[in-house]
Amino acid sequence: MDYDLIVVGFGPAGIAAGLNASIRKKKVLIIGKKSKAIEKSPSIKNYLGFKDLEGKDLYQRFIDHIKEYPVEIMDKKIKAVYALGDYFSVDLGDKMLTSKTCILASGVDMGKSIEGEDKFFAKGISYCATCDASLYKGKKVVLVGLNDEAIDEANFINKLAKETIFINPKNEDLKLDSGIKIINKKPKEFIGDMKASSLILEDGEKIEADGFFIIKNSSKPQSLAPSVKIENGHIKVDSNMQTNIKGLFACGDIVGRPYQINKAVGQGQIAGLNAASYK
Amino acid sequence: MDYDLIVVGFGPAGIAAGLNASIRKKKVLIIGKKSKAIEKSPSIKNYLGFKDLEGKDLYQRFIDHIKEYPVEIMDKKIKAVYALGDYFSVDLGDKMLTSKTCILASGVDMGKSIEGEDKFFAKGISYCATCDASLYKGKKVVLVGLNDEAIDEANFINKLAKETIFINPKNEDLKLDSGIKIINKKPKEFIGDMKASSLILEDGEKIEADGFFIIKNSSKPQSLAPSVKIENGHIKVDSNMQTNIKGLFACGDIVGRPYQINKAVGQGQIAGLNAASYK
Repeated sequence: MDYDLIVVGFGPAGIAAGLNASIRKKKVLIIGKKSKAIEKSPSIKNYLGFKDLEGKDLYQRFIDHIKEYPVEIMDKKIKAVYALGDYFSVDLGDKMLTSKTCILASGVDMGKSIEGEDKFFAKGISYCATCDASLYKGKKVVLVGLNDEAIDEANFINKLAKETIFINPKNEDLKLDSGIKIINKKPKEFIGDMKASSLILEDGEKIEADGFFIIKNSSKPQSLAPSVKIENGHIKVDSNMQTNIKGLFACGDIVGRPYQINKAVGQGQIAGLNAASYK
Repeated sequence: MDYDLIVVGFGPAGIAAGLNASIRKKKVLIIGKKSKAIEKSPSIKNYLGFKDLEGKDLYQRFIDHIKEYPVEIMDKKIKAVYALGDYFSVDLGDKMLTSKTCILASGVDMGKSIEGEDKFFAKGISYCATCDASLYKGKKVVLVGLNDEAIDEANFINKLAKETIFINPKNEDLKLDSGIKIINKKPKEFIGDMKASSLILEDGEKIEADGFFIIKNSSKPQSLAPSVKIENGHIKVDSNMQTNIKGLFACGDIVGRPYQINKAVGQGQIAGLNAASYK
């Protein structure tokens, strides 16, 4: 077994979960990208103990805190978590890691879905280029870029794909590798039969492709762990932050409102302590 | 209506609840004694954002934070909270206050019960001298003193009662008003018929009295709010920290383990925000 606990998500909930499990002497890995939402917050007045702090300063304090402990931190997106009876396998695309317990704390997808996105998820649509790009070697790929990471993801895909098209709905200034075609239009709808085969843009333009990527800050919770129970768009947990799958916990925004830092951290603590005592 | 929200309890959960409701422009009162448990903690390493802090320093930061907001703070114990349809009445013994919503955050009773304590609660046994002493004017009262406040409570009772006996199981050095009899023995069992009539001590000594007080850091949750639903010794709440009584919320140690500060604060935030949006 590689770890006692793998935490998916490097926001306040995930850091709190990792901290509390590490204090209980568990071998912990946290996998996730830095949270842009908290980093960009100009002023946080209700994290008890700090009267008023910029989001990036509070976040830095959280990161400094977890770095005091022997917790491994990996700046990556995962593809999925698989429950395999008495352990979990976390799929990073290029490798698999095993863990006794797992905590999902990767936040919420704040953006609206594109029409057809949910229907075709994992059927031609993926949220993680580093995980799934290899499927499209020598093929034509369309990527919808909704955050800063989309640039790296597109460049990565372009190394493998025959043709890469970057849909740039925010009309941002992009420095992409040569060969990537940029279209400054909003996506409207995915269409297809068994799998997504085309993306229709706002003006009706239709782009066919072998695969589609949507790169945004967070993915649908159900895409993280097959068969995890969802309720009203959030992962359903009990008061111990336990999901319907034994040994799999969830905390923070991914389990519901309010989307607040103290709430996320408190739930992370509960999840971390319960994962640590899970047998 | 005196308040939008009355929070019972001045520990981390209660302060967080009050803070979040006050930020939402609600008129808030927090009633409670300072938490001895956190004040006496020599080192807290898992309140995310502070690597290592003495309990009293962290608590002081919480108090400084709430004092930035127009929240009224009352250093008192309450007798009970009564749900009266669309508002609550909080009984302080000497007066009643009304509020649209209420949050119970008064922590847990960490000590073991004395035999018969639960059975005779509110039937001759009380946890609050300043609330109930007037019932025993001119009568004989026994007080079991389990914390520092017991001294003031005993002196207060003694002004009204005909005879006051202080049971001092911890054998502590006490400065009590003259006329109060001190017995340095452990209490064993309350006995009585419809109400408690005697306390048996460890050596079999039997003390009859008209009323009994047990002064300790926290009372049984069910004694705070009649008909609130209890599960495994804690107040039962849903994920919004809502109890079985509409408009009555609970958070922190009183709703269950782990007894941890971030967890309490996170739940306080949820309770405070939900109380603020309660219609």
